[in-house]
Amino acid sequence: MSFSFAPLLTRMQELRDLGGAIGLLTWDQETYLPAKADEARGAQLSTLQGLYHERLTATALGDLLAAAAAQRDLPADQRAMARVLAWERGRAVNVPGDLVRAIAEAQSQGLTAWRAAREAKDFRLFQPALQRLLELRRQQADAIGHSGQRYDALLEGYEPGMRVERLRPVLESLSRRLVPIIRAVSEACARKGPWPLAGKTFDVEKQWRFTLRLLKDMGFDLDAGRQDKSIHPFTGGTHPRDVRLTTRLEAENPFPALFGTIHEGGHGLYEQGFSEEHFRTPLAAAPSMGLHESQSRLWENIVGRSRPFWRHYFPLLQAQMPESLQGLTTEQFHVAVNWVEPSLIRVEADEVTYNQHIALRFELELLLIGGQLPLADLPAEWNARMESLLGVRPPDDVKGVLQDIHWAWGELGYFPTYALGNLYSAQLWAAARPAVQPELERGNLLALREWLRQKIHREGYRYPAEELVQRVCGRGLTDDDFIRYLTAKYSELYGVTL
Amino acid sequence: MSFSFAPLLTRMQELRDLGGAIGLLTWDQETYLPAKADEARGAQLSTLQGLYHERLTATALGDLLAAAAAQRDLPADQRAMARVLAWERGRAVNVPGDLVRAIAEAQSQGLTAWRAAREAKDFRLFQPALQRLLELRRQQADAIGHSGQRYDALLEGYEPGMRVERLRPVLESLSRRLVPIIRAVSEACARKGPWPLAGKTFDVEKQWRFTLRLLKDMGFDLDAGRQDKSIHPFTGGTHPRDVRLTTRLEAENPFPALFGTIHEGGHGLYEQGFSEEHFRTPLAAAPSMGLHESQSRLWENIVGRSRPFWRHYFPLLQAQMPESLQGLTTEQFHVAVNWVEPSLIRVEADEVTYNQHIALRFELELLLIGGQLPLADLPAEWNARMESLLGVRPPDDVKGVLQDIHWAWGELGYFPTYALGNLYSAQLWAAARPAVQPELERGNLLALREWLRQKIHREGYRYPAEELVQRVCGRGLTDDDFIRYLTAKYSELYGVTL
Repeated sequence: MSFSFAPLLTRMQELRDLGGAIGLLTWDQETYLPAKADEARGAQLSTLQGLYHERLTATALGDLLAAAAAQRDLPADQRAMARVLAWERGRAVNVPGDLVRAIAEAQSQGLTAWRAAREAKDFRLFQPALQRLLELRRQQADAIGHSGQRYDALLEGYEPGMRVERLRPVLESLSRRLVPIIRAVSEACARKGPWPLAGKTFDVEKQWRFTLRLLKDMGFDLDAGRQDKSIHPFTGGTHPRDVRLTTRLEAENPFPALFGTIHEGGHGLYEQGFSEEHFRTPLAAAPSMGLHESQSRLWENIVGRSRPFWRHYFPLLQAQMPESLQGLTTEQFHVAVNWVEPSLIRVEADEVTYNQHIALRFELELLLIGGQLPLADLPAEWNARMESLLGVRPPDDVKGVLQDIHWAWGELGYFPTYALGNLYSAQLWAAARPAVQPELERGNLLALREWLRQKIHREGYRYPAEELVQRVCGRGLTDDDFIRYLTAKYSELYGVTL
Repeated sequence: MSFSFAPLLTRMQELRDLGGAIGLLTWDQETYLPAKADEARGAQLSTLQGLYHERLTATALGDLLAAAAAQRDLPADQRAMARVLAWERGRAVNVPGDLVRAIAEAQSQGLTAWRAAREAKDFRLFQPALQRLLELRRQQADAIGHSGQRYDALLEGYEPGMRVERLRPVLESLSRRLVPIIRAVSEACARKGPWPLAGKTFDVEKQWRFTLRLLKDMGFDLDAGRQDKSIHPFTGGTHPRDVRLTTRLEAENPFPALFGTIHEGGHGLYEQGFSEEHFRTPLAAAPSMGLHESQSRLWENIVGRSRPFWRHYFPLLQAQMPESLQGLTTEQFHVAVNWVEPSLIRVEADEVTYNQHIALRFELELLLIGGQLPLADLPAEWNARMESLLGVRPPDDVKGVLQDIHWAWGELGYFPTYALGNLYSAQLWAAARPAVQPELERGNLLALREWLRQKIHREGYRYPAEELVQRVCGRGLTDDDFIRYLTAKYSELYGVTL
């Protein structure tokens, strides 16, 4: 009986091309789409996603995947391609079409209700829509299948192979260990007086040019990708040779542009770093959102907020914007980029306090999926936990439970990947540092890109995320490296004992 | 027996959404695609076009269309939708998949060979690829079906309902009548001395701003479309609320930008003018390329090169670019935009000589499809006909037979639509003029947009092109109005008797 991989490969390529088209339609929606075309674009995206789902769940594809799985002598990469696609298909094929459509409808209603609730600063307007989304997500989790813990089925949509059982102890440990660090560092930071950049303005055109220079220095190939502007920076695109970043320019603060670009640049380098022989197959992908986020966080925080980085770049930035930065020292600027202060909004949080925002959401999501928290109590529970974790209390729901778009879409299980990104980034840095740090001190960013390319990017989806981290770092998921990184950096920077 | 249009409508919408995605991928390829992503984009486009073809030719769609055609009491618009889609499907379903693939391959080889031939300025490098394309197009024409004249089957791909038998006498008459006009006008123009803008430069940023102002004044809705830059200006997009134009900026000459924008703006107004109840159906489309081109030509030439237009706009342009236009009179500028001179390159030709470039290509295409002209003789035949039609002789093949990309793609039957656009534009202008001219004299462009919207745009694809022109103008295709327009305008402008 002869087996040919070719028909399966053709279907993989078709799915990737369709995914690429969806990627372009989505990117365009956030960058260049005319205002009145929103509804039309929604319909186009829905049609293409429907086609994608149809092709993914086609019986013929299932047969080809089964035939491939039965081959004992398939080359390792082909086996991995078939395994990854079978996994994706398995999740999709078990969810009935009616449920898929009901979720899509509830998402759209959720978004509308969430917006209205934000407008009125009143969670109650969003509550019925969220209730419906939770019910549907529970049904979806059961359809996908799990061993008792529904949240696992949702979590795995973003973080294949991860389980609550494995994740929870790590995030709980992290949260516990952060409490004293946050207190000590934020108090020391507050004593440094006002934020060093307060009241200044920054030419946006110069910011833009500087972000492009940073991308080039990081080794992001602007002939195989681009940068544009959008309100919420993101990384998208259609192919590893067509990777699209966005950034955001603010006249009063250069950090959204600088760190937005470095962050998305980290994502972008991952996408550009997949192996050419994996292009248009399921292997040209990160094995999890958490590992993807590890790349952006490593570049944004561990590199981009380091002293060597600004020793090299601050004089260049200052020379380009003397009108904004004259009189400031590198050290003052370095303090400004590492300002630590417990705050209400996750997306504005510093790297010390950030993970507490995730801890809060993760625990609440577990309660919500488990039906252990009446929705009417959610805002109060949110506020109480904010106060206990970070010592700040939201004045209204917009600055509290309504701040993120994720739940408006019924997206549960995504938040933990941000924390995983932070933890993995510190683990990878611990492994990369001996070889890479001396180069960073010389202002050479390419050494880190090369290290990541060899160890992480070119592997694509060959291994699950934690297995890959284990291979590269000699250890699976842990909060040790992250805590070590934070304590070393911030005890030195703010002169506190941690 | 009950009939529901809904399943058919769903399939129509799906096809339009897929077409919209193809539209975005194509637009992006010419505007923002990173250089190294060319191959990836080619694969994505090919996959989506394959999907489109598969859905279009699906048996289930054929059954739905047959059922719709059998309904006697279908509302007129639904009947028209089914008829248009059945026609498109009929052409696609009769061409075997092997032939479709062979053509795609030959097109790609044709493009490569054409580029090499241009590089070497030697048609012979392109000849074998063109030979192959011609053979395949003949096979395709036979597969589609025709009544003896293969060219008809190709022509109808762009101009449904048009036949060589109908078209040829009109284009022959046009060509004959143009000869004395071209001679008289170009001689008179030459006596006016050098082109009034020779040697000047024009700030490209100011050009860009002025083109956006023109689009606004024409009534192009920039919230339902956009303008970008590309090397070859075109109109694309994904939906009537997402219409995308491009223009080209040259520092030495403002006309590519000004007339490129007005031309594409004419196309764009057509796309934005379809009726909302036709969106995402086959009726939200022009019935032919020729009629589409009539809109761009009407705006570009008949309006955009008229004296009332520049009486209004030249002072505004001059005020914006005093450094370039100081000292020039409106009349001198009007002469500059209506400079008539027989030349070698079609895309640079003025409106008086332009149609001779088409006459040449149309007659050569008929000979090529008919196998009556050995390919080896094509360049010589081209050059001889250029000399006889326009009195100029190409110094090499790049300025002759290799100048257009159409044949490199095996695109035969397209060129005549440019001439049809010119003829239809003059016919429509003759009908619109009594109501619209006074408004143009006042600098109001919206009256023409409104007239076209009511008479042409909102009809979409309800009627074949010539039938729609007949309804609006009281007469089918003719060269009379165009010749009348030319003679009136140019006899006055250059003081010659025509």
